[in-house]
Amino acid sequence: MSSEERLQRQLDFLLEIDRLKQVERQTRIVGNHRRENTAEHSWHLALFALVLGEWTDEPVDLLKVLTLCLVHDLVEIDAGDTFAYDQVASVTKADREQLAAERLFGILPPDQGAELRSLWVEYEAMGTPESRFANAVDRLQPVLLNHAARSESPWVHHALTRGQVLARNAPIASGSQVLWEVARRHIHDVHEQGLLLDDGPPPES
Amino acid sequence: MSSEERLQRQLDFLLEIDRLKQVERQTRIVGNHRRENTAEHSWHLALFALVLGEWTDEPVDLLKVLTLCLVHDLVEIDAGDTFAYDQVASVTKADREQLAAERLFGILPPDQGAELRSLWVEYEAMGTPESRFANAVDRLQPVLLNHAARSESPWVHHALTRGQVLARNAPIASGSQVLWEVARRHIHDVHEQGLLLDDGPPPES
Repeated sequence: MSSEERLQRQLDFLLEIDRLKQVERQTRIVGNHRRENTAEHSWHLALFALVLGEWTDEPVDLLKVLTLCLVHDLVEIDAGDTFAYDQVASVTKADREQLAAERLFGILPPDQGAELRSLWVEYEAMGTPESRFANAVDRLQPVLLNHAARSESPWVHHALTRGQVLARNAPIASGSQVLWEVARRHIHDVHEQGLLLDDGPPPES
Repeated sequence: MSSEERLQRQLDFLLEIDRLKQVERQTRIVGNHRRENTAEHSWHLALFALVLGEWTDEPVDLLKVLTLCLVHDLVEIDAGDTFAYDQVASVTKADREQLAAERLFGILPPDQGAELRSLWVEYEAMGTPESRFANAVDRLQPVLLNHAARSESPWVHHALTRGQVLARNAPIASGSQVLWEVARRHIHDVHEQGLLLDDGPPPES
């Protein structure tokens, strides 16, 4: 591949991924009714990683953490955002995202496409300290936004229980015990405001 | 400062900067009439830096380049986005951004606030290879988006000349000669489509 072709493929990829700005998430931005999109969410995650990096339980390579935060949701350009609590959509999520990874990373020069694709696989597998920490901030960020959104939160809209939200976010603990405590505190606070349902039947009185 | 207070300040900062998602730029996202916001722009820049890092003229510390891309526009939360070709607003830009930096980075624990603030100062001064490269991609990205937007581009809306756009983007050359060639090619292409004005009086016939 000539260097002109290499550069052109990189530019094509960079224009193509602009579409991540049109992928809507369930989360609302702070103080505003608009939904968050995945591009700005990815930026926010990277800032979470930068600012909270001192609270990891294991040493991490911060460059790798930032890269994971920036690229792990690119597949949503084709596959869309799958709401974490949507059990039906979650069944097909892996297949949709595999196809998306094939097409999107395939736009890049092969060496670079393979490198970014392997980072996405690493993120999903959570087998490294960096991917565990990136996954932790990817969960913590919507917990904080949903806490701030109060009755506008998708937790309320989808009538979730405290147990569902705690279970979804428990993997934060594998990246940072301190940040898991932060998440638990925010989730319990939302529950105490009556905005997360109880689990199971109410206790007999 | 207790570790609880330190963590709380970091969380306060991370919620506060969510507002960058509401700062509108002049640029339009690809294939859509909506304006780009500064948070998603910052994400896009970081991807530009990741993918195009091989075209710098000097070796760079990629972690620092990414960090510069992610934090250099935070001051726009208070100061707003200043259109690069707006000579009136540009006069007050530095003062507005200094005040914004004082308040925003002041939310963080002092050591961390000082560190992020010094990165913002480094970005503005363009005295290091990393800041020159981050500035280069910060200019190249809107060139590509404006090229894609054709008649919807802010260059057309503000009736800019080719000379104005070339002058604004010339600093790309101090970060990467290759990327400056890419920018020149795109600017000339837009001019040939009749979407950038000529400079000076038309040649006599």
